[in-house]
Amino acid sequence: MMERQKIILDCDPGHDDAVAIMLAANSPQIELLGVTTVAGNQTLEKTQKNACRVLQWLGRDIPVYAGCGRPMVREPRAAGDIHGETGLDGPVFPPLHKTVEPEHAVSYMIRTLLASDGDIIVVTTGPMTNLAMAMRMEPRIVEKIRRIVLMGGAYANGNVTPAAEFNVLVDAEAAHVCFTAGRPVTMVGLDVTHKVLCYPEIVERMAQVNNGASRLFVDLMRHFCKTQKEVFGMEGGPLHDPLTIASLIDPKLLTTKPMNVQIDLRSEQSYGRTNCDYYGYLGLPATADVAVDVDVPRFWDIVEDCLRRYGEEEGAT
Amino acid sequence: MMERQKIILDCDPGHDDAVAIMLAANSPQIELLGVTTVAGNQTLEKTQKNACRVLQWLGRDIPVYAGCGRPMVREPRAAGDIHGETGLDGPVFPPLHKTVEPEHAVSYMIRTLLASDGDIIVVTTGPMTNLAMAMRMEPRIVEKIRRIVLMGGAYANGNVTPAAEFNVLVDAEAAHVCFTAGRPVTMVGLDVTHKVLCYPEIVERMAQVNNGASRLFVDLMRHFCKTQKEVFGMEGGPLHDPLTIASLIDPKLLTTKPMNVQIDLRSEQSYGRTNCDYYGYLGLPATADVAVDVDVPRFWDIVEDCLRRYGEEEGAT
Amino acid sequence: MMERQKIILDCDPGHDDAVAIMLAANSPQIELLGVTTVAGNQTLEKTQKNACRVLQWLGRDIPVYAGCGRPMVREPRAAGDIHGETGLDGPVFPPLHKTVEPEHAVSYMIRTLLASDGDIIVVTTGPMTNLAMAMRMEPRIVEKIRRIVLMGGAYANGNVTPAAEFNVLVDAEAAHVCFTAGRPVTMVGLDVTHKVLCYPEIVERMAQVNNGASRLFVDLMRHFCKTQKEVFGMEGGPLHDPLTIASLIDPKLLTTKPMNVQIDLRSEQSYGRTNCDYYGYLGLPATADVAVDVDVPRFWDIVEDCLRRYGEEEGAT
Amino acid sequence: MMERQKIILDCDPGHDDAVAIMLAANSPQIELLGVTTVAGNQTLEKTQKNACRVLQWLGRDIPVYAGCGRPMVREPRAAGDIHGETGLDGPVFPPLHKTVEPEHAVSYMIRTLLASDGDIIVVTTGPMTNLAMAMRMEPRIVEKIRRIVLMGGAYANGNVTPAAEFNVLVDAEAAHVCFTAGRPVTMVGLDVTHKVLCYPEIVERMAQVNNGASRLFVDLMRHFCKTQKEVFGMEGGPLHDPLTIASLIDPKLLTTKPMNVQIDLRSEQSYGRTNCDYYGYLGLPATADVAVDVDVPRFWDIVEDCLRRYGEEEGAT
Repeated sequence: MMERQKIILDCDPGHDDAVAIMLAANSPQIELLGVTTVAGNQTLEKTQKNACRVLQWLGRDIPVYAGCGRPMVREPRAAGDIHGETGLDGPVFPPLHKTVEPEHAVSYMIRTLLASDGDIIVVTTGPMTNLAMAMRMEPRIVEKIRRIVLMGGAYANGNVTPAAEFNVLVDAEAAHVCFTAGRPVTMVGLDVTHKVLCYPEIVERMAQVNNGASRLFVDLMRHFCKTQKEVFGMEGGPLHDPLTIASLIDPKLLTTKPMNVQIDLRSEQSYGRTNCDYYGYLGLPATADVAVDVDVPRFWDIVEDCLRRYGEEEGAT
Repeated sequence: MMERQKIILDCDPGHDDAVAIMLAANSPQIELLGVTTVAGNQTLEKTQKNACRVLQWLGRDIPVYAGCGRPMVREPRAAGDIHGETGLDGPVFPPLHKTVEPEHAVSYMIRTLLASDGDIIVVTTGPMTNLAMAMRMEPRIVEKIRRIVLMGGAYANGNVTPAAEFNVLVDAEAAHVCFTAGRPVTMVGLDVTHKVLCYPEIVERMAQVNNGASRLFVDLMRHFCKTQKEVFGMEGGPLHDPLTIASLIDPKLLTTKPMNVQIDLRSEQSYGRTNCDYYGYLGLPATADVAVDVDVPRFWDIVEDCLRRYGEEEGAT
Repeated sequence: MMERQKIILDCDPGHDDAVAIMLAANSPQIELLGVTTVAGNQTLEKTQKNACRVLQWLGRDIPVYAGCGRPMVREPRAAGDIHGETGLDGPVFPPLHKTVEPEHAVSYMIRTLLASDGDIIVVTTGPMTNLAMAMRMEPRIVEKIRRIVLMGGAYANGNVTPAAEFNVLVDAEAAHVCFTAGRPVTMVGLDVTHKVLCYPEIVERMAQVNNGASRLFVDLMRHFCKTQKEVFGMEGGPLHDPLTIASLIDPKLLTTKPMNVQIDLRSEQSYGRTNCDYYGYLGLPATADVAVDVDVPRFWDIVEDCLRRYGEEEGAT
Repeated sequence: MMERQKIILDCDPGHDDAVAIMLAANSPQIELLGVTTVAGNQTLEKTQKNACRVLQWLGRDIPVYAGCGRPMVREPRAAGDIHGETGLDGPVFPPLHKTVEPEHAVSYMIRTLLASDGDIIVVTTGPMTNLAMAMRMEPRIVEKIRRIVLMGGAYANGNVTPAAEFNVLVDAEAAHVCFTAGRPVTMVGLDVTHKVLCYPEIVERMAQVNNGASRLFVDLMRHFCKTQKEVFGMEGGPLHDPLTIASLIDPKLLTTKPMNVQIDLRSEQSYGRTNCDYYGYLGLPATADVAVDVDVPRFWDIVEDCLRRYGEEEGAT
């Protein structure tokens, strides 16, 4: 049987982050050590609350740490209207009892990684500020990181500017730090996440599961798909973030290709572009495994399996 | 019946440029006023000779003007091995009698456009140096240009760097001048030209035409497809440049979408990227009609029609 | 005796350009072949008229050629209020009879340099658009240029932005082309021109010469010093441009130091900065002789000598 | 009497940093809360040891915290040979007993500033990594910072590249974070520090003080002046860093001018330039008080006074 993979999930929930948390929190292949949060889809104050809300709903006692409230260098950038006022509009959450830990997410990452046997995977589904800050504050953690799996970037088109994807654009310097750390990086970018569209029939299918977790999924997705349609004109919302976790649950989910990836930090107009050398024009060593395809049906199976594993009682409170 | 469109074809032959010349030189929909050449696929000395070679082969008495031998601002960049030592390796050309005109291509463009009724389309299939230089030397020509139709750029991936396509990369400043001139621009980029692959069966089909022009096509394509395979691993060579001319012959060939396009001149790594705002994220006015799809069978019909119009005697010398 | 140096003076008059023309037009050490004009201190239409006005006033039958009306790549930038509405506010000029030649300044430069024995110095006192365009249009002129002497740049502070001096800022790409041409370049920047301040006592001294040329100088300087005071708070206006010509008249006027000079084309905020490696930090070859000091009294003697050489009758019409 | 100013001194000793520590550690006007160290003139390992060495020599029981070992975003850059193998070559230090605190400098800054009444001045004499990281990790400290006084930058020329001064160049992103924090910033750049040259007669003068502290000063300066001469050809070494502390001891020491300052992060060649709008060209609000002049004799008096305050016994161990 597959080894259980220890992960820290760094996120900015966010609807698709919430689904990533759902996958990470009860998959047999994954041991979710902690959830760290960052400003991105919404302010830090809101994303940390949302992480707590989701874990409380799911009845999972996993610690949440609040991290950086703004990018390493540049000014903060708002995420627009995709995720709504709370960052997790849609579901009606019960009163929040779960609280964030007093430790800063960056300190938590440093402490946990330093104490580890080098077996922790860091998964990021928001701007990569926390991980980059941790690596710069304590460089000894770098070699302790087993892998970095991130949702972000694109080798074709961006989704905020023509050049850049949101998570990388918000903190391109942080992404640069992570991509150049010398650790194995898996980049799950728009090139594949735009293939995983949550059409109404998918929402229906998950509704059939009919437990607390599935109800949360359904409430999240109904709102998410509505705003994606309003903002981008897309029929089904692209479920970006959970692909990272799903690729750990099933390593065959994604097709990846090793590429040299460089983040543009210099240009005003191309700032945050992940220049991925798909064809190897530059003759430089590969620095990341970049997702180029995804087995979409397999992904929805993973989601459904996960939802079913949640018992009926979970999500009741 | 459709009006005959006057064009100046600015090119750097180059195998696909040669096919563009073939299309432009005997299509009923097009009046080819002159061919101007630029350094790009090969040196200026070679591209001007190649333009003469092709026109002589075809028996077309169209004047050729040599233009700029290097980009406006940056250092020249070699095109690699795609087009071979001569820039038009493959065919065995007879001794060259046709000569370039004494006038500089930039002066020719200025003189011809100033004297025109504003009815000339400038088609560029190489770096856009000549046209940009002409517009900067004599700004009064700008309003005389009916349209600019160019092969260059890409909204997804480049073909020389991850960010940039060859023609724009070689002289991004020139491209910037052309895209910001305020005239109608049609950008035919890699996004569509990579769909027009000259597979062996296409070469066979054109060989059936069996005249001088078709023999030239076949000899050019055999070499071109061979090097494309060696360099990029592609089965069929992408016939980039002729799409510009073919889109004038048949306006339904391409599907285009108006987009705001900005050329990156600032960044080292994204230099020459055509940042096309496909989804309108930036809320800026469209500055070009960007080709997003092509009717491939229709294109090959246009090519075959064109070859057939060449009589047997043409291309004999 | 010193050889008579053939020069083409490329300028954008402009008060200090006008004084440069005065020096160039009757110095025994200089043979002024032609004056070319460019947009800069004012529009091309105005700068070409101003060149004619000055030469007509001085009674010098030197041809004037109009060149480029805007920079090679970037948008035009206005010079502000230093030179007034006409670009040469102050003097009351008589009706203008002198006309510009029909040939474009770029064509004139190319034709003249190609036909020369490599003995022509190009002096630029405005944005370097014309010379750069000529070199790119006809690269064979490059080796024909004996030297380039330019007013522009600064190794310390700029005078339009913190980073950049006006002439280079207006067309930094053109400056880059000139600095990288491989010909001897003398850069006369703000570092020395800000030492040559035309205080009221200088104006008085030149007024004593009491001929047409001196009256022109006096009328120009009274206006120029007034606006310099209004705009920059300087007591005496810095007489930037004539230092170029004066340094040809007397090679001991300037102290220069060979430096590697690179023009910043990449950055928004440092665009147009002439990064001069004064201390040789970079270990790169010197690309220009950069003026680091000027013998100010000697300069004013050169100006006075020049004014005195003009006869009383000159400047009467 | 003047209030005693609480400071945290963030430094990378370094000879001139060592003198800054000497001034800060026993001036009646200053309460030195802690010394934090950063990679810069030497590696973090060496700079933290050097801070301990100096404080042990001086007999001052002030805590030292080690901070970041590399810049926030860019690759580390070596300081060259100015400070020698140890970073503090010259003096023969006794065995080192003093140790750094276990707390990270960034955590120390955050904890101390959060607990303060907003009365702490942060003085930086190295790359500004620690302070910037602290502000990004815990934005609530920003309003707690009374002032930032930094040695770094230049409005004229750099000292590592033509554009940039060492401390800012090493971590321009960190400098950007500090300059844009919205707190009062005093920039003490090369424009004034290059006026404070430690000539042999100054060394002689300080040698007359004849106590442990003065012996340390003399040993440091003899080595420092030797390498400055070897590397830059300067007779006296510029005593950059202590000007920050000295300006707190005597507010009349420096003449400053409020300017808008922007750090170039975009350009390869101008990276790290502090574009200071000396003349207010840009019409933007001032963001720093930039030192434009220094009363040099007063500075040496401050140094001498400081050295004399150290008793004979100090520096004995």
